[in-house]
Amino acid sequence: MSTLGLIEYKNASPEVRAVYDDIMATRKTDWINNFWKAIAHDPATLKRTWDDVKQIMAPGALDPLTKETIYVAVSVTNQCNYCIASHTVGAQKKGMTDAMFKELIAVVGLANEINKAVTGYQVEIDEQFKTRR
Amino acid sequence: MSTLGLIEYKNASPEVRAVYDDIMATRKTDWINNFWKAIAHDPATLKRTWDDVKQIMAPGALDPLTKETIYVAVSVTNQCNYCIASHTVGAQKKGMTDAMFKELIAVVGLANEINKAVTGYQVEIDEQFKTRR
Amino acid sequence: MSTLGLIEYKNASPEVRAVYDDIMATRKTDWINNFWKAIAHDPATLKRTWDDVKQIMAPGALDPLTKETIYVAVSVTNQCNYCIASHTVGAQKKGMTDAMFKELIAVVGLANEINKAVTGYQVEIDEQFKTRR
Amino acid sequence: MSTLGLIEYKNASPEVRAVYDDIMATRKTDWINNFWKAIAHDPATLKRTWDDVKQIMAPGALDPLTKETIYVAVSVTNQCNYCIASHTVGAQKKGMTDAMFKELIAVVGLANEINKAVTGYQVEIDEQFKTRR
Amino acid sequence: MSTLGLIEYKNASPEVRAVYDDIMATRKTDWINNFWKAIAHDPATLKRTWDDVKQIMAPGALDPLTKETIYVAVSVTNQCNYCIASHTVGAQKKGMTDAMFKELIAVVGLANEINKAVTGYQVEIDEQFKTRR
Amino acid sequence: MSTLGLIEYKNASPEVRAVYDDIMATRKTDWINNFWKAIAHDPATLKRTWDDVKQIMAPGALDPLTKETIYVAVSVTNQCNYCIASHTVGAQKKGMTDAMFKELIAVVGLANEINKAVTGYQVEIDEQFKTRR
Repeated sequence: MSTLGLIEYKNASPEVRAVYDDIMATRKTDWINNFWKAIAHDPATLKRTWDDVKQIMAPGALDPLTKETIYVAVSVTNQCNYCIASHTVGAQKKGMTDAMFKELIAVVGLANEINKAVTGYQVEIDEQFKTRR
Repeated sequence: MSTLGLIEYKNASPEVRAVYDDIMATRKTDWINNFWKAIAHDPATLKRTWDDVKQIMAPGALDPLTKETIYVAVSVTNQCNYCIASHTVGAQKKGMTDAMFKELIAVVGLANEINKAVTGYQVEIDEQFKTRR
Repeated sequence: MSTLGLIEYKNASPEVRAVYDDIMATRKTDWINNFWKAIAHDPATLKRTWDDVKQIMAPGALDPLTKETIYVAVSVTNQCNYCIASHTVGAQKKGMTDAMFKELIAVVGLANEINKAVTGYQVEIDEQFKTRR
Repeated sequence: MSTLGLIEYKNASPEVRAVYDDIMATRKTDWINNFWKAIAHDPATLKRTWDDVKQIMAPGALDPLTKETIYVAVSVTNQCNYCIASHTVGAQKKGMTDAMFKELIAVVGLANEINKAVTGYQVEIDEQFKTRR
Repeated sequence: MSTLGLIEYKNASPEVRAVYDDIMATRKTDWINNFWKAIAHDPATLKRTWDDVKQIMAPGALDPLTKETIYVAVSVTNQCNYCIASHTVGAQKKGMTDAMFKELIAVVGLANEINKAVTGYQVEIDEQFKTRR
Repeated sequence: MSTLGLIEYKNASPEVRAVYDDIMATRKTDWINNFWKAIAHDPATLKRTWDDVKQIMAPGALDPLTKETIYVAVSVTNQCNYCIASHTVGAQKKGMTDAMFKELIAVVGLANEINKAVTGYQVEIDEQFKTRR
């Protein structure tokens, strides 16, 4: 379910199917998760979003597992349950072990704690950290 | 500056100095950044927080650079300027190149975008993602 | 359900009923949604909140549909599921089409993405934007 | 400064002055802080907001210091620098000592940390906590 | 200033200049704001982000002023100062009057207040709002 | 349920049982809530987190009920459903009446509203509030 409903492959237009096919080929799976089916009502958004994901999450200076790890960290900080569920599975597929997951959550918790302590104490930025060019 | 002021090394009690010394030794630096000086008014909090940071950010299943990367991702999502400034420098010291930084911010932006799109469309979690034990 | 339970019309005091009646008359509906029943335990809060909603959401320099659209944008950014569900329906009643909804979510996603990118890059505000009086 | 500028007492309309007078009398001060001067461009909003603040922050089942403490906790979690600065001063005036401030920030930090850990681990709510009526 | 510095037009590569030219032509201005100069270190990100902005903020089912209004609402909820400053100016250019601005902020404040009240009371979604298809 | 599953007392190692025993003794209950069972996969994290909770939530300059109240205020602002459910029960056990709960949520709502209004109007901090030492 979703606000506008989900567009299944069998009911999809050729341009939507083309994106679905690319998602499945790229991810080496035979199914499409609900997020894509929800935004497929707007084929331009579907294509743009998938193109962005493909470009941004591809191997680069950071490897795909590190990128999934960052994605989970953001999703946890934002309390997005769907995103946590889907990207935790995604990270596990890319090699995240239980030990790595536990450390990830510990760092996310710590950063959230200290972010607020710093702000609460109204701490001024040290000159040494003003390295912006 | 900070709400309660900053406790400099020369004015610090022995127990605060012991933590400052450990921070400088662990980080191989000769100065203490403002956050620690701000919370040093409460030596128990100073020690507890530093012990937590030392334990959580140490090498483990995730390497220290990945942990700093996660820390920056959380700080950006929380819009904590002090934390972004200090941990971006921290990550650079641990080897984060400009290319890695750019990809980090791109993933953080993407995750924030899609987190909200998923929530906005009220997308239901797929059965395949319900892998919680 | 709600922490303190829901106060149904038939069990409500006269002052609570007066607010319920005004909500139904103003919204041209014959039922009261759970939020109001949850806060009705505190009649002063119920009345104050409803008076605020009536004043703020009324037609003015912005039309009611634009106001509902803003409300949904905030609720999505805050990941408030109840608020998204109720105000998406509210916006649809005021004329939001599926096409408008899709564009709304796209703008919300984009703004969330770029908000974080700007912050992540520690971008300084341009002089041209410092138009505060 | 503020987007629309600040309305000083000497330039204010009688209805705005009436609210300013009430703020100063209630708070036993002889000046108005910038927030009120910023929203005074809209006298109805000024009056509504001040009436809400007066009603909600007044002594009740919770004492005024506890209410200021809650206000600071929310402002820190939201990273609102103006609000932290103004309400920390407000809380200090109502009796918040440095020791209380330090404990407040520690609890805020802890709650933010554990909020994210709970969400990150996708923990299901215990039956014993489902006490909603 | 920005973490990686700002790329000025005169120092930009041809592909970066092409995006800058398109931004200025589309927006009918003769300058580029800092955000674009900050992300121009990564020409692929610059182009992708600008293409997304152009597509999403273009006139459609929602007019450009409504889209800017939504953008400001999100930026305020996220407490992103750069984004508020730049998009408030952007909205004013597209016709947002002071009266509209005041109502926008009032709705954003109200939605944030009620979002939290609903969540605080743990209110269950009404059957009537479960209209997801 | 939880990402890694829940570790029940009967299946727990001696070091995990020692923490569970201390939680039950400190809280005068005979059961362990899911959060602790979820993080018990990492005994070091379990012990560190419990030690932090015990230290921070103990009576001090702020009494335990005020601390629980702050905890709920943060959890509501973060929209963490598990945390709201568990700590509302925790606060009730420590003496929070329905009247206090209602005022708590009203203050949280107000602070969230005004936090955003202040930010939306880009209000500058008054000199009188710049009391940081």
